[in-house]
Amino acid sequence: KHRFWTHVPWGVDSFGCAEWTGCSLADLLKEAGLKPGAKQVIFTGADKGVEGGKVQHFQRSLSVDDALLGHVMLVYRMNGEDLKPAHGAPLRIIVPGWYGMASVKWLTSIEVTEGGWWGHQMEAYSFRRAADDPGRVPLTQLPVRALMAPPGFPDFFSRARVVAPGTHRVVGKVWAGAVGIDRVEFSADHGKTWANATLERKTGLFGWATWHYDWVTPAEGTCILKCRGFDTKGRSQDEPGDDDFNWTGMGDTQPQM
Amino acid sequence: KHRFWTHVPWGVDSFGCAEWTGCSLADLLKEAGLKPGAKQVIFTGADKGVEGGKVQHFQRSLSVDDALLGHVMLVYRMNGEDLKPAHGAPLRIIVPGWYGMASVKWLTSIEVTEGGWWGHQMEAYSFRRAADDPGRVPLTQLPVRALMAPPGFPDFFSRARVVAPGTHRVVGKVWAGAVGIDRVEFSADHGKTWANATLERKTGLFGWATWHYDWVTPAEGTCILKCRGFDTKGRSQDEPGDDDFNWTGMGDTQPQM
Repeated sequence: KHRFWTHVPWGVDSFGCAEWTGCSLADLLKEAGLKPGAKQVIFTGADKGVEGGKVQHFQRSLSVDDALLGHVMLVYRMNGEDLKPAHGAPLRIIVPGWYGMASVKWLTSIEVTEGGWWGHQMEAYSFRRAADDPGRVPLTQLPVRALMAPPGFPDFFSRARVVAPGTHRVVGKVWAGAVGIDRVEFSADHGKTWANATLERKTGLFGWATWHYDWVTPAEGTCILKCRGFDTKGRSQDEPGDDDFNWTGMGDTQPQM
Repeated sequence: KHRFWTHVPWGVDSFGCAEWTGCSLADLLKEAGLKPGAKQVIFTGADKGVEGGKVQHFQRSLSVDDALLGHVMLVYRMNGEDLKPAHGAPLRIIVPGWYGMASVKWLTSIEVTEGGWWGHQMEAYSFRRAADDPGRVPLTQLPVRALMAPPGFPDFFSRARVVAPGTHRVVGKVWAGAVGIDRVEFSADHGKTWANATLERKTGLFGWATWHYDWVTPAEGTCILKCRGFDTKGRSQDEPGDDDFNWTGMGDTQPQM
């Protein structure tokens, strides 16, 4: 049922939240002077490759409306240090609250056009049922999502975790873009029952929040742990989704397990 | 012919060279006072997992002779910054000139024994012809090895690189533990012919050296690039090896391609 893609060497468990320093894209565009009729802002990064027999720069656009919202940034520092090459030095954009693909690294140009613009990397990052699904929906804002650090230590090949009997504090993060977090729930029985985790404050408008749950293990046996987030807009990580629509595996829509 | 192992999520192209700050293991052992008959120093790290049905700590030993050579370090800073968790904080050892598996991270104990000691992680890191090969040879010191950064940009799936016709400076690093570097050779025809690369100085006794070669590409076609290092002890990266002996894929003994 599921297709597996070879895009990037990480799975569902790779995530981060940094503090960025830079200048507001909206301020820059205002100072540059947008002409009437400006529609799209196109960002081109220095990274390129051959795909479908063509040279493709990593290139994404934002509508002028999105670009002027005020929170998109041209960034040159990360967590108080100069931006490192791996993170897009010397200059990248950050589109907070969106999936990471919108945040173009190693910027070489910013262009404003009157027409529409739909490049290869816009096409690539869409939910859809097939390669040419006309009903595809481009990824934009992040859904709500909680993840946990697995407790205990792993078996070498199966990666099953081993914990001593007793109480274990399971810790994790939850985020929902600019939306507030309502709660995180934790299950130790593969989602049959759920309990509320303890939730800390978000680290900022677009930040994440830390959560924990003190899990009392059974004396022995195998448990399947899950967590799921809910945001203040009523969204849940555990809505009955349409798996087929995520043909490219772009967004995870299930509780972490 | 080749077996593939799933140890770690990187291939032949992952390497680094850092500047370490710490204290000499030899000084520490002398101050602690070694008893006559001390034979092995056992290092235990906080990382553990289940392997072969047993809980295994990452644990390695050095002979007292190796431990007293003076260059093994207990390290708490890396490249001038406090050691980060991913690199073994709060304390790790560095065994310069050896394969990285000897440099135990997240140290929880250092024990000295009179007897021999041969733990799971000593067994695991050996050249051999089969799991139970009695002629196995534990990995210790690094061989000579040159690697290069691939020029141009990649095709998405094949990872074949694309370069414009002309002259491209191919850059790389070469190292050989404490041994000096004699030369690096570069080939653009899959090893039929070789040319000397330009070699800079090693960054220290156990450091690496930068090399480069200005490669004039053909007008069109496919080239297989290789590089190989030679050290001042007469060792070469390109010696006719016994591939079968590297049953665990522990050390690369071929020119980079």
